Amino acid sequence: MFLVEGIKTVQELLHSSFEPHKVYTTDGAIITSDRVKTELISEADLRKISSLKNPNTVLGIFKFPDKKPVDDLEWILALDDIRDPGNLGTIIRLCDWFGIRHLVCSNNTVDCYNPKVLQATMGSITRVNMVYTDLVEFIRAYQGPVYGTFMGGEPVHAIKLPPKGILVVGNEANGISNEIAGLVDQRIGIPQFGSGHTESLNVATATAIFLHEIRRIVK
Amino acid sequence: MFLVEGIKTVQELLHSSFEPHKVYTTDGAIITSDRVKTELISEADLRKISSLKNPNTVLGIFKFPDKKPVDDLEWILALDDIRDPGNLGTIIRLCDWFGIRHLVCSNNTVDCYNPKVLQATMGSITRVNMVYTDLVEFIRAYQGPVYGTFMGGEPVHAIKLPPKGILVVGNEANGISNEIAGLVDQRIGIPQFGSGHTESLNVATATAIFLHEIRRIVK
Repeated sequence: MFLVEGIKTVQELLHSSFEPHKVYTTDGAIITSDRVKTELISEADLRKISSLKNPNTVLGIFKFPDKKPVDDLEWILALDDIRDPGNLGTIIRLCDWFGIRHLVCSNNTVDCYNPKVLQATMGSITRVNMVYTDLVEFIRAYQGPVYGTFMGGEPVHAIKLPPKGILVVGNEANGISNEIAGLVDQRIGIPQFGSGHTESLNVATATAIFLHEIRRIVK
Repeated sequence: MFLVEGIKTVQELLHSSFEPHKVYTTDGAIITSDRVKTELISEADLRKISSLKNPNTVLGIFKFPDKKPVDDLEWILALDDIRDPGNLGTIIRLCDWFGIRHLVCSNNTVDCYNPKVLQATMGSITRVNMVYTDLVEFIRAYQGPVYGTFMGGEPVHAIKLPPKGILVVGNEANGISNEIAGLVDQRIGIPQFGSGHTESLNVATATAIFLHEIRRIVK
């Protein structure tokens, strides 16, 4: 089970297929649901179970969702060791926006049920199938083209993207690991137009551009 | 004058046109420059002047750069009240990447010399002309097309973008203000392909997509 804080995210989860176990609140009027009994607790008790410095008035405990199979007839996003919770949260939200339904994460990617990730997803996590797995094995077993994002890769807007594929995005500091780079069919990138001094794009902003390109071409 | 922390950003600024006033360090070996005398100080003193909980070993004080005119023959990005330092930092880095040389900010936009912004720009601020001004007046005086980013605006990839223009991006919570919306010639947006439940894209990730589109079309 995992813990969620804040009225907004708890409500999004109560309206999703996630199964609630318990909801605690310091304000009985603020939240009602026929899916779970809410329990009134004191602010002092909430502070004890909260992971936040300034706890919200609502805290929910939910069961992990059942594992769902990955549909390999559509575009899949794969993350190779994304470590920053804010980046993962933003990427989940991007998947939701662009209709990428399956997000496959290497086992070393930051936990998507980390409170910081949950807060950054703004409820999008209820609509994206999160899969943690051995990414090398997953890609090896996949039938279809594998695109990897690299500095200096082929400009993404100049490529004819197919109707399905895996898009692999790498770690914030080290990019895609050598082992996975060896499984990539085509290296793609975002051309730089400035002075050439910028180190790189942030991984979440780069992912936004890649997903936009996929949807621009593959409706 | 403004304060910069961390060896990396201080060095980027020392190698730029920014004029250094003073560099303090707890480690004399770590930084040398013929542009400024570095002063060795104790860790206790550094802690007193630092804005960070865990100060770095290097802290620099630089003079604000001279005001430079905006070149209105190229694409200009305009920010209408961006408030989050991380978002502004990411947007400055995006301008640097995509060769947008002038970033015009409304007077209520977060200060770009805020330490959190400086840290997020990763040195890109030395290559982007930052202008704070009355955005309404600036846009009124501008000769050329004004594009505003809106939820539900015309899909950006379906538009023939001209070789120059202003792209206006709005506040995180409220978007573009009514007054500036009235000065916009065309409303553009990023189509949503998911279930339609996602609230919106983060302003920095959306800006990444818009700038990519400008460069995809206007080389």
